Amino acid sequence: MAIVDPYPPSGSRDFLPDAVKARERVMRTIKEVFERFGFLPLETPAFERIEVLTGKYGDEGEKLIFKILKRGQQAATGEADLALRYDFTVPLARVVAHHRHKIGSIFKRYQIGPVWRADRPAKARFREFYQCDVDVVGSKSPLADAETILALAEALQALGLGRFTVRLNSRKVLKALTEAYGIAPALHRTVLTALDKLDKTDLDSVMKELSDQGVGAESTRQLAEDIASGAPQERARARLAQLHEGRAGLSEVDHVEALVAPVLRAGSIRFDPFLARGLDYYTGPVFEFAAEGLSSSIASGGRYDDLIGMFSKESVPACGGSLGLERIIHLMEANEKRALGIPQALILVWDEDFRLDALKLASEVRCVGVSAEVYLGEGDVGRQMRYASKKEIPFCLLLGPDERLSGAVTVKNMRSGVQKTVPRAALAEMLAREVAAESRD
Amino acid sequence: MAIVDPYPPSGSRDFLPDAVKARERVMRTIKEVFERFGFLPLETPAFERIEVLTGKYGDEGEKLIFKILKRGQQAATGEADLALRYDFTVPLARVVAHHRHKIGSIFKRYQIGPVWRADRPAKARFREFYQCDVDVVGSKSPLADAETILALAEALQALGLGRFTVRLNSRKVLKALTEAYGIAPALHRTVLTALDKLDKTDLDSVMKELSDQGVGAESTRQLAEDIASGAPQERARARLAQLHEGRAGLSEVDHVEALVAPVLRAGSIRFDPFLARGLDYYTGPVFEFAAEGLSSSIASGGRYDDLIGMFSKESVPACGGSLGLERIIHLMEANEKRALGIPQALILVWDEDFRLDALKLASEVRCVGVSAEVYLGEGDVGRQMRYASKKEIPFCLLLGPDERLSGAVTVKNMRSGVQKTVPRAALAEMLAREVAAESRD
Repeated sequence: MAIVDPYPPSGSRDFLPDAVKARERVMRTIKEVFERFGFLPLETPAFERIEVLTGKYGDEGEKLIFKILKRGQQAATGEADLALRYDFTVPLARVVAHHRHKIGSIFKRYQIGPVWRADRPAKARFREFYQCDVDVVGSKSPLADAETILALAEALQALGLGRFTVRLNSRKVLKALTEAYGIAPALHRTVLTALDKLDKTDLDSVMKELSDQGVGAESTRQLAEDIASGAPQERARARLAQLHEGRAGLSEVDHVEALVAPVLRAGSIRFDPFLARGLDYYTGPVFEFAAEGLSSSIASGGRYDDLIGMFSKESVPACGGSLGLERIIHLMEANEKRALGIPQALILVWDEDFRLDALKLASEVRCVGVSAEVYLGEGDVGRQMRYASKKEIPFCLLLGPDERLSGAVTVKNMRSGVQKTVPRAALAEMLAREVAAESRD
Repeated sequence: MAIVDPYPPSGSRDFLPDAVKARERVMRTIKEVFERFGFLPLETPAFERIEVLTGKYGDEGEKLIFKILKRGQQAATGEADLALRYDFTVPLARVVAHHRHKIGSIFKRYQIGPVWRADRPAKARFREFYQCDVDVVGSKSPLADAETILALAEALQALGLGRFTVRLNSRKVLKALTEAYGIAPALHRTVLTALDKLDKTDLDSVMKELSDQGVGAESTRQLAEDIASGAPQERARARLAQLHEGRAGLSEVDHVEALVAPVLRAGSIRFDPFLARGLDYYTGPVFEFAAEGLSSSIASGGRYDDLIGMFSKESVPACGGSLGLERIIHLMEANEKRALGIPQALILVWDEDFRLDALKLASEVRCVGVSAEVYLGEGDVGRQMRYASKKEIPFCLLLGPDERLSGAVTVKNMRSGVQKTVPRAALAEMLAREVAAESRD
């Protein structure tokens, strides 16, 4: 039979133990913070019925959905009935509608796990990647928006990434500004899409895109002038104050900022009237965390009061946010390159007759919490110790013929080279102590 | 727009917070045991290139693979290029071949996570379910088989499920028995498939299946007589001792049993010459853990020395096993129904003017490790306390007009009904103490 090439699918990754350990450490820190805020974990299936996902992500997003073929005799039709989840927000909306009576009037949940998008793979862009979301369902209060932002901020601080600015805006502000610049309501989405590119491209390109899409020259000129002015916030405030929806948007933004700013323990928050956020479903406050030295945002979110209504006759307000987990892990990995997934002791096997001694020894040291690997390969004790050195296992334990006779075990500290023979009865406790001392260094 | 029904796909589940917490606790215990044995975590993508999975699971298994439609212009062809993983063993074999130089000569890994099979959904049979595998790659030693069995046994014991029997056999034993009963080698797979049903159905049905598949009457009679005899092991041993492959199989089984039995801290192990295990790829020792009071096995595995060769010119020996995680979680859930995912304190919000006070208070108690939810709904303090009662949150904290004037906070223990007003500065420490006392009860 032909040998199949062993690489993983394009845009996906195998995570070897060190990488898994580093990723798990980041996720554990985030989970602890979220739970301290009263958010609870939810898990939804990897795939959804295809009609649950369609019509939620815009035309561009829809093309990126991985679809699953029907099974059995229907496979031949080439039709799909399921699709891999694209994010956690739409599944959350479905769960809320489905389990309304079980989740209570206010539901605060987090979800961390993989999502799938058939994007063109590129550096730091994957087709399978982790998302990390917190959401509050059932509350219209600006407290909910504030708690979402604070939980994300606290998680970043706990990870040592406390140097960020929260850029805050409201969809109402953007809608009113469109009106203030004399742009037709029909072009509102076009404006959002174009403004969303402001942190990735230059102002001229964004303005050209607006012109190309039919926004008038005078509107474009005023918009560009406000953005490029030294005081875009003041200019926008002046325009917004004159419109009903503008005042509503400003009030929303100011409320959230007044709640967040005094409680924030790291970073800062400021109103950014031109922050757009790409997604269709936002209805109120939106925000992005800009981290020092990073061109793209490290966290983001907003309020989406109408999404759950797509699965339920009941309208349920909701808001939430997401940490850029892959970007965070990438930042953290650059910070430290420690090897993490290494057992603390290697149990050497003198020869075949000593296999059972080795297993019993392993069992003893594991009982005191020392992680131990029994050498499973071939070769003499010298080769076995070279294996330990190569894997950076800090201790080797040997129970050979001499040790068996004297009821002892020889312990070698691989870092210091010091070797001592200790009575079997004293071993486990002594080893636990030495392992603890090594890991403090 | 029409409302989309909110149920999850057939055979999949939404896990609400209590369920996630219970599942996570089980998985954490298992991970701790595996790491104590020197197994390290590996993560592979949810999907594989379709050619990686085909030809590995037999005809029946192959039908159950979820296939993913090609994207973009090729979607219209109805063809699939990816498929959801069906287990963790084939992806492991691929990873070993792909990352051979990175993983070292011996690679001990565990993987816990979802796999997908398009089985007909039924009670306790899902299309998305978790598997939990340990494997040792690179060792031919019976120590590797023994360590695999011991790690699974220790995990079951740590979960309080220590009443099991490990049924041990070898594929070599089964092959030799086929010969001993005078069954043609071409029917060996048929015999395996039929014998694998022995714990699900009665002996007569299995024998009828063998006859239907062309096994001779005398062979069937002898086989049935041995199985039904009071001493199947002795009868099989006598037959095996007369054949070269039979002696090899017995030696393999006896070696593993001699290593495992003296070290096993719970349960027991015994040779079962008629244990078959369904999967195609096993080559040596195979085993199943039978738990008291359960008809199907709670853990199983075996040696598969030829699988990695399907992805690499190099032949690499390997063995491993799997815990029946969904079955274990089901058993554990029946044991305890405690609610787990509840924040420790609810911060009441007197009215809109007290929102910022509530947020600051939450921030203070979270700093001492108390998980706190700020009330995000509407309604007066009475309604807010009813919300706490309903969610079984043990403490309510109120900072209202009186408390603001006197620099204090009122704390209500919802279980005892005791309410006291304490100075703000003393609150966090006092609350941490009371929360600890409550959770000890």
